[in-house]
Amino acid sequence: MMKVDAYSHILPAPYFARMRELSGGRAALRRWLELPALHDVEVRLRMMEEFGDDYQQVLTLSSPPIELLAGPDEAVALARLANESMLELCEKYPDRFPAFVAALPMSNPDAAMAELTFAIDGLGARGVQVFTNVGGRPLDDPAFQSVFDEMARRDLPIWMHPARGAGFADYATEDSSKYEIWWALGWPYETSVAMARMVFSGLFQRHPDIKIITHHMGAMIPYLEGRIGLGWSDQLGSRTAGEEYAQLRRDLPERPLEYFRRFYADTALSGSAIGTRCGLDFFGAERVLFASDCPFDPEGGPMYIRETIRVLNELDVTDAERERIYHHNVMRLMRLPVDM
Amino acid sequence: MMKVDAYSHILPAPYFARMRELSGGRAALRRWLELPALHDVEVRLRMMEEFGDDYQQVLTLSSPPIELLAGPDEAVALARLANESMLELCEKYPDRFPAFVAALPMSNPDAAMAELTFAIDGLGARGVQVFTNVGGRPLDDPAFQSVFDEMARRDLPIWMHPARGAGFADYATEDSSKYEIWWALGWPYETSVAMARMVFSGLFQRHPDIKIITHHMGAMIPYLEGRIGLGWSDQLGSRTAGEEYAQLRRDLPERPLEYFRRFYADTALSGSAIGTRCGLDFFGAERVLFASDCPFDPEGGPMYIRETIRVLNELDVTDAERERIYHHNVMRLMRLPVDM
Repeated sequence: MMKVDAYSHILPAPYFARMRELSGGRAALRRWLELPALHDVEVRLRMMEEFGDDYQQVLTLSSPPIELLAGPDEAVALARLANESMLELCEKYPDRFPAFVAALPMSNPDAAMAELTFAIDGLGARGVQVFTNVGGRPLDDPAFQSVFDEMARRDLPIWMHPARGAGFADYATEDSSKYEIWWALGWPYETSVAMARMVFSGLFQRHPDIKIITHHMGAMIPYLEGRIGLGWSDQLGSRTAGEEYAQLRRDLPERPLEYFRRFYADTALSGSAIGTRCGLDFFGAERVLFASDCPFDPEGGPMYIRETIRVLNELDVTDAERERIYHHNVMRLMRLPVDM
Repeated sequence: MMKVDAYSHILPAPYFARMRELSGGRAALRRWLELPALHDVEVRLRMMEEFGDDYQQVLTLSSPPIELLAGPDEAVALARLANESMLELCEKYPDRFPAFVAALPMSNPDAAMAELTFAIDGLGARGVQVFTNVGGRPLDDPAFQSVFDEMARRDLPIWMHPARGAGFADYATEDSSKYEIWWALGWPYETSVAMARMVFSGLFQRHPDIKIITHHMGAMIPYLEGRIGLGWSDQLGSRTAGEEYAQLRRDLPERPLEYFRRFYADTALSGSAIGTRCGLDFFGAERVLFASDCPFDPEGGPMYIRETIRVLNELDVTDAERERIYHHNVMRLMRLPVDM
């Protein structure tokens, strides 16, 4: 069965070279350097052979958010470099990389809109990637509204990747750098917060059919379905002085929980069958996309792919549902023909 | 079948009166005032009748963490008032309230140890409640170690309730007060962070059998099983400059994911069948406790109880497993005789 990996990460060589210059050897780069399948396409292609000819990857840029690497002006050139070099990979290896997702210089919203237009119309990108915050500003900030409006108008998806919050502060306690909590738990928290802000700021009222792909299968949302329903949707405002949120609850045409079900969710849960089942039950097979998070696994590439395929093959779903999850859904979202 | 609700909240009248004095009419109290089943025991008892004679509640104090209401000295008297008045309810209504869990003045660690001893030995408390942080200090701070050591020595459980972090800051973006995100998502994040800090600071190495009951069924952990396993347990340190965490990973005798399975988890998921199934698959029927989070539901008392019973009755488990979840496990943890 054809399998199109909807969220795999890449650092095209020209972009990675520039990123290394800009980072000045920052220690955080070590992680990327130690993963050749991320920035060496030959290694990547060899690694993919394990999964046969019917395995493909949609390319998204793996990078810290561009605005952490460069100021608003340099960010424009960086996004362009990323997009042109991802296109190059797609053109050179179309059997492996059927499409790419544009990077945007979000810290410069006007330039982000210009790059969105050029990347989709000029380079053929089939969607855009945003991070859950832009230098600490949430995505429901009015500065970013035009990106969402435009992607809804174009009927193409937005891939949403988590990023640490402003100033790397810790919500909970003194220091989320402790034990890498920022990565394991902070990122899913970030994704969930971004989803909530979209729901409650009325994104799905403005754009009922907007296509937002959430990484890590909706993060905290499916497991907390009850809390989000009876706890939050039906009691919003009860924990706040003032009437603002109680009024918002009355004003929302649908129960907020139902808006949370309108996101799309990828299966990048690092090979957990129980999580995948829960997420699928929450979103439904129409909105779940096979994705591996390749190459950030202990083997540096193939392990999450292998484990995710194992989980999906063992899921109790119909063959038609499994096909949707493996490739129909993502191709439909990108408005590309389904390859049987 | 006997059902002992392992996590329900109460504000005994004398404590609530004192809390209102100390709060000076703070707006946040509105939430508590609007829930008579929380502070009026007659309302509470009438509400419980819906569930028949075989429904009981273990009492835990519902309150902001005591240190948010009072300084370290006043906190001592407040905890004592809470514990004595919870005991009074248990003595007066033993068929409804088989046990209570002691509140502790954690901002004053010496006094917390003294109150722990008095509440258990003098008042008969069957465990203690802690919050996920103490005025922003995490629970793996050495100041609190003696509480954990002592509860392990006594072989009695610690109920862990989420609380907002220091200064109510937001991990993710500008303001977690927005849309009550702090409650819906911030609390489960807090619980998960506290669990992680216990695991990685070696709590289960020091005390392999310590009994920690996590609210909301382990919060983020079960759904992220794969991320915590292949992503975190097996790659700890790879995202950090320096060798400290890579060394910690090598030094831990077991895979960190397996320590996460040693927590106990209550079913307070506000009536979600898919979440409950996922959590049960993660922790196993030996470690899951029926709990409702009563009375914080839209009906102000019975709804979470009713919805949680509905979910547990429909779970595909054996009768013996259902009995464990409904009451055997919690009674065993408290070392009380099981009432058939």
